[in-house]
Amino acid sequence: MSSPSTSQALPDPPYYAVIFTSQRTDGDRGYAVMAERMVTLASEQPGYLGVESVRDAEGRGITISYWSSEEAVHRWKAQNEHLRAQAAGESTWYADYCVQIAKVERAYTKKKSADATHP
Amino acid sequence: MSSPSTSQALPDPPYYAVIFTSQRTDGDRGYAVMAERMVTLASEQPGYLGVESVRDAEGRGITISYWSSEEAVHRWKAQNEHLRAQAAGESTWYADYCVQIAKVERAYTKKKSADATHP
Repeated sequence: MSSPSTSQALPDPPYYAVIFTSQRTDGDRGYAVMAERMVTLASEQPGYLGVESVRDAEGRGITISYWSSEEAVHRWKAQNEHLRAQAAGESTWYADYCVQIAKVERAYTKKKSADATHP
Repeated sequence: MSSPSTSQALPDPPYYAVIFTSQRTDGDRGYAVMAERMVTLASEQPGYLGVESVRDAEGRGITISYWSSEEAVHRWKAQNEHLRAQAAGESTWYADYCVQIAKVERAYTKKKSADATHP
């Protein structure tokens, strides 16, 4: 769902992070198609900066989307097609979930490949 | 490394999140023991609120630790044994990583089991 380098490509803080932690229910039931569609849809919204998502074999997942402002976060939450996905997520795809809205104040990254010339 | 309910058990915002995204190198090389030790060590620090961690089959991971204040985050970053783990992480365990310090301003959770009596 995300490339390994999402965090490496973000602008300097401050910006906003929407932290979505969840436990999937069993079975796909349309989840994979929706998840891919939501990433595409999010990337088309104003203020979108990036997304990264990891889910383990037990169905535990953390997805973080990044936004330029709190207003952009609000607009994305209220986007029509996203609202329908949120409802289906609550009824069908997730056993539990938590959404946290956070202002990223500092960030630092390290990429081995970028250091290849500095042994 | 974390129970499914970490996010469900946090206090009301505001609090701080340290978002650690990483790509593991191949092979364990002491990683699993260190990771478990760091969770234990973090939980003993003042201001610790919880941690959740997910890593997928490709070695991509997101770990979020939660803290009561920015001061608690600073102290944890500077903790001696944690500093040694950070150095080993940079040299050995991670191909790339990103650390983001964020202030959580809002949060909402949903747990299916808690709704079992509300069909």
